[in-house]
Amino acid sequence: MNVDSQRAGRTGGRDARRAMRNAPVFDMLPALKRGIPTCDVMDEDQIARIDNASMAILEDVGIVFRDERALSQWRVAGADVRGERVHLDRGLVKQLISSIPSEWTYRARNPARNLNFGGKYSIFAPMGGAPYIRGLDNERRWATLADLQMLLKLTQMSPALHCTSHHIIEPMDVKVSYRHLDIAYSSIKYSDKMFMGMATTERNAEDVVKMAEIVFGPEVLETTPVITGNANCNSPLVWDELMLGAIRAFSSKNQPILCSPFALGGANTPASAAPTVAQLNAEALAGLSYTQVVRKGSPAIYGHFLATVSMKSGAPMAGTPEISLMNFMIGQMARHYGVPWRTSNLLGGAKSFDAQAGYESAMTLNAVLHAGANFIWHSAGWNEGGLQCSVAKFVVDADMCAMGYRMAEGVRWDDFDEAIQAVRDVGPGGHYLGHPHTQANFERGFYMPKLFDDKPFEQWQAEGSVEITARALSYAKRLLDEYQEPKLDEGIDEALKDFIAKRKREIPAEDALNTDR
Amino acid sequence: MNVDSQRAGRTGGRDARRAMRNAPVFDMLPALKRGIPTCDVMDEDQIARIDNASMAILEDVGIVFRDERALSQWRVAGADVRGERVHLDRGLVKQLISSIPSEWTYRARNPARNLNFGGKYSIFAPMGGAPYIRGLDNERRWATLADLQMLLKLTQMSPALHCTSHHIIEPMDVKVSYRHLDIAYSSIKYSDKMFMGMATTERNAEDVVKMAEIVFGPEVLETTPVITGNANCNSPLVWDELMLGAIRAFSSKNQPILCSPFALGGANTPASAAPTVAQLNAEALAGLSYTQVVRKGSPAIYGHFLATVSMKSGAPMAGTPEISLMNFMIGQMARHYGVPWRTSNLLGGAKSFDAQAGYESAMTLNAVLHAGANFIWHSAGWNEGGLQCSVAKFVVDADMCAMGYRMAEGVRWDDFDEAIQAVRDVGPGGHYLGHPHTQANFERGFYMPKLFDDKPFEQWQAEGSVEITARALSYAKRLLDEYQEPKLDEGIDEALKDFIAKRKREIPAEDALNTDR
Repeated sequence: MNVDSQRAGRTGGRDARRAMRNAPVFDMLPALKRGIPTCDVMDEDQIARIDNASMAILEDVGIVFRDERALSQWRVAGADVRGERVHLDRGLVKQLISSIPSEWTYRARNPARNLNFGGKYSIFAPMGGAPYIRGLDNERRWATLADLQMLLKLTQMSPALHCTSHHIIEPMDVKVSYRHLDIAYSSIKYSDKMFMGMATTERNAEDVVKMAEIVFGPEVLETTPVITGNANCNSPLVWDELMLGAIRAFSSKNQPILCSPFALGGANTPASAAPTVAQLNAEALAGLSYTQVVRKGSPAIYGHFLATVSMKSGAPMAGTPEISLMNFMIGQMARHYGVPWRTSNLLGGAKSFDAQAGYESAMTLNAVLHAGANFIWHSAGWNEGGLQCSVAKFVVDADMCAMGYRMAEGVRWDDFDEAIQAVRDVGPGGHYLGHPHTQANFERGFYMPKLFDDKPFEQWQAEGSVEITARALSYAKRLLDEYQEPKLDEGIDEALKDFIAKRKREIPAEDALNTDR
Repeated sequence: MNVDSQRAGRTGGRDARRAMRNAPVFDMLPALKRGIPTCDVMDEDQIARIDNASMAILEDVGIVFRDERALSQWRVAGADVRGERVHLDRGLVKQLISSIPSEWTYRARNPARNLNFGGKYSIFAPMGGAPYIRGLDNERRWATLADLQMLLKLTQMSPALHCTSHHIIEPMDVKVSYRHLDIAYSSIKYSDKMFMGMATTERNAEDVVKMAEIVFGPEVLETTPVITGNANCNSPLVWDELMLGAIRAFSSKNQPILCSPFALGGANTPASAAPTVAQLNAEALAGLSYTQVVRKGSPAIYGHFLATVSMKSGAPMAGTPEISLMNFMIGQMARHYGVPWRTSNLLGGAKSFDAQAGYESAMTLNAVLHAGANFIWHSAGWNEGGLQCSVAKFVVDADMCAMGYRMAEGVRWDDFDEAIQAVRDVGPGGHYLGHPHTQANFERGFYMPKLFDDKPFEQWQAEGSVEITARALSYAKRLLDEYQEPKLDEGIDEALKDFIAKRKREIPAEDALNTDR
C-alpha cells in the first residue's frame, strides 16, 4: 500500500479502512522532538577542561589548513598563520562559531517532508559510502547505481528515515568523476525527502549545490537549507584542500555542511576517551570556524566519525563502551557551543547480518539517542565497518530508528487517567485484552517491531526456522513492489538532465587540467 | 588460564607475565559503581502522579493476598482487609517501606567476591528459568542438571557476572519437588560468587535459606545478606500463597527478596507505559510492605518483569521502546522510595542467536544501564522469551555486561593531561600507535569485545565465514576447559549433602500431605 492509497483509505469505505489498519504505514514521521533527557556524563568543570584543552591545542599546536585560499582567508580573519599551520586564538574561535544558527528548518522537494532541525529536533539518514552491498540475494559484491536507486526507494518507504544519504553505496559502475552527478540526480528523483550532496571536492560540491538550485531556485537556497554535505577532517589536526573546497561550496551558498573529524581512537587520536574528544573538538571547531569565515551566519553542523581501533587487527570497532561515552561527551560540547551536531548510528563491524551486527548496531543507536544527536547519519545498512551495505540490515535498522524515535519521544500521558480507570474496571486477577482502552490504544501504546519474530518456537520451526535476514529481505522486496515514485516536475527533471549532460561533457577536460583530482 | 595461575603470573617470571597479558582475565569485577547519570524521563509532578495513582489503587481497589496467614498479619498491621482484598492506606505503605535498607553488602562464599549493593552499586546475574537450552552443539532440547552445572561454571568464569542465578535453566531431569535442593547445591559448589535461592514455595524457600545457613552459619544471616530470592506478583493485583510464603521464608531470616510484578503490557496491564508502571508500582509496593510486616528492617528489592505483548501472537516481546521507557520510570519510582531495584537484562525473543537476538538484547542492556537498576537479572543467555538459554548467547551477553559496565562507570580522567601532551607530541598528520601513552593505555583506554570479529572480510571468508554463534561456542568450550572448581569446605559440603538427603526423604511425605503443592 502506498502513501496515496493510504490517503484514499482515510476517506474511503470500510474495506479501505480495514486494509489500512492491517497495512504498514509508509508516511514519514516528522523530525524527532526529544522528550527524554540527554546523558550528561560531564559536569561544568569537565566541559571546561575539554574546552580549554581543545583551545590550547588550536592556539599552541595549531591546525593544518592544506589549502592556499583558506590560509589567505585565515590571515584576513586575523588568525596567526605559520606556513600551513593556523594558530587559532580561542576568542576568535568563539566569536566565529557564535554566528552558526542553532536551529533551522530544512526544505524538502515535498513540503510535507520539511524538517525541523537542531535543539530538541533530530533526523535520521541512512548510511553512506559502502563500496560493497549484500543485496536482495544476501550475496556480497561491488555495488552499482541500480543498487543505489533501490536503496533510495527503501529510504523513501521508511517512515523514520528523514532524508536520503547521497552515496548510500558507492556506484562502482559509474566513473568516479561523474558519480556525484548521478548520485544527486537519483537522490532527487527516487525520493522526495531532503537529500545530501557529495562534498568530495570543491567542484563536485559546487555541482550538487547547483543541482539543488535547479530544484528549488537559487533564491530559496539563499535563505533556506535544502541539502547537506559532509567534510571530513584528517585527524589529527589536518583539514585538506578537497574538504576545505567543499566547505566553501556549501557555506558560500548558505547550505549546511557537517564538519567531521574522522577519529580512529588509538590510531589517529590518543588511546583514551576524554583526550580523544578534546582533539576531535579542536578539529571540529576549526572546521566550523572556517564555515563562518567563508560566510558569516551560514548553517553548519558539528560532525564526527568515531571508531575505536582493534589492537589485534587495526580495524575500526563499533558498539564499544567508549564510543558511547564519547558520543555523550561530544553532545555536551556541541550543546555548550550552541551548534547542532551529527553522529553515526547503527554501526556494525560484522561481516554478515549475525547477532554481532545486532548488538553493535543497537549499542550505537542507544548511545546516539541518549547523547541527543541532531543529524543522525549512517542510520541504516552499515555493516563491515562501513565497507558493506546490507539490504537486510537496512530495513531492520530503519525499523530500529522508528523504535528509537518512539523511545526518545518520551512518555505519553494523554491516556493516563482513562487507563487508570481501566485498572479499576479490570481489578485483581482480571485481564485487559478485552477492555475498550486496550482495544483503542494497543498500537499507540506499545510499538510492534516489524521484523522481530514473536511466534512460538514450534510454529517458527514448522514454518522453516526463518531467521531475521531472510525475513528482512522478503520485507525489502515487498517494499520495492509497493514503491511508487514521487514524480519530479518534468521541467526540473529536464533541467537536471541537461545540467548533468553538460557537466559530463566538461569534466574530462577539467580532469585533464587538474591531475590532482 | 584460571584465576590461580593468573595470580601466579603476577608474581612469576617474564613468560608468565607475557602469558597473562595474552590471556583473558577471569577475575570478577567488583560491583559496578555508576558514574553516569540516570535517564530521568519524569519530572517531580509526574513521579507524584504515578505515586498517587498507585496509592489510590491500593486504597480503593485493594490488592488480593491469597493467603490466610498474610491476611491475618495485615489485620494486625492495621490494614483494611475485606475478604482476600487488602486495602492499604498510603500512610501505612510509606511507613512500612521506610524501614527497607537502601544499600547493603552481600557476603559471598569467597569474601573477595562480596558485593556492594544499592544506591550507585549494581550487580549482574545471568538468566533464570529456561526449560530449554541451546547447548554447546547449538541444538535446542530440554535442559538438565548437567547443563545447569556447565552454566554455573561459565558464570564463575565471566568477570562481569557478579552472582549466579538459581535455575539458569530448569533441570528437567530432576523431580520438581527436589529441584530447589539440587539447584542450590550446584550454585554453591560450582561457583564461589553470591547465589540465588529458589523461592517457588514457602517450603522450598525455607530449604534454600537453611542451606545458606549451613554455608555461612545462621548468625551471619541474621546480620548479613548472603542469598536472594524472587517472588512474582500475579498481575493484576494478586499476591498468591506460594509467593507470600517465599517472602516469609526470606524476610524472616533477614535475606533479600525481589518483589516482582510480572507485567505483560497490554495483557495483564493497560496498553500504555505510564499506567502500566502505576499498576506495577502498586503491586511492588504491596509486596515490599509485606516484607516489613514479616520482619521490620529486612532487606528487600523492588522487582518487576516487564514485557509488552504482541498483538499478533500474544507472545511477550523484548527490546521495544516502551520497555526502555518503563525501565527509566520504574528506576525513578524506586529511587523515590529509597529502595534498591531489580530489572531484567539482555532479553531476546528470537528463536535462534540471530541479529534479532542481538538487537533486542542490546536495547535492553542500554535501557537497564541508563535506568540505573541495582539487581540486573537475566543478564546472560535469555532468548525465546526466556524459554531458551542459549550457551552461545550466554558468553556473548556476559561480555556485553562487561562492556555495559565500562560504559556505566563513566569517563576516566586520570590520564587526561598525559594524553593531551601526546596530542602535542604527535601533532598534525601524525599517528599515535607508537606513542608511549598509547602503548601504556590501550587496553585501559578502549574495551576490546571478546567475541566480535573485526577482521577484514577476505580474511574472515578465508577462515570459513565463521559467524558469532560458532565463535561463541568455541569460546564457551575453552572456558569450560580452563575452569577450576573453587573448592568448597569439606565439612560444609558434607553437611549440605546430608541436609539434601534428609529433605529428599521427607519431601515425598510432605507432598502427600500437601496436594496443592
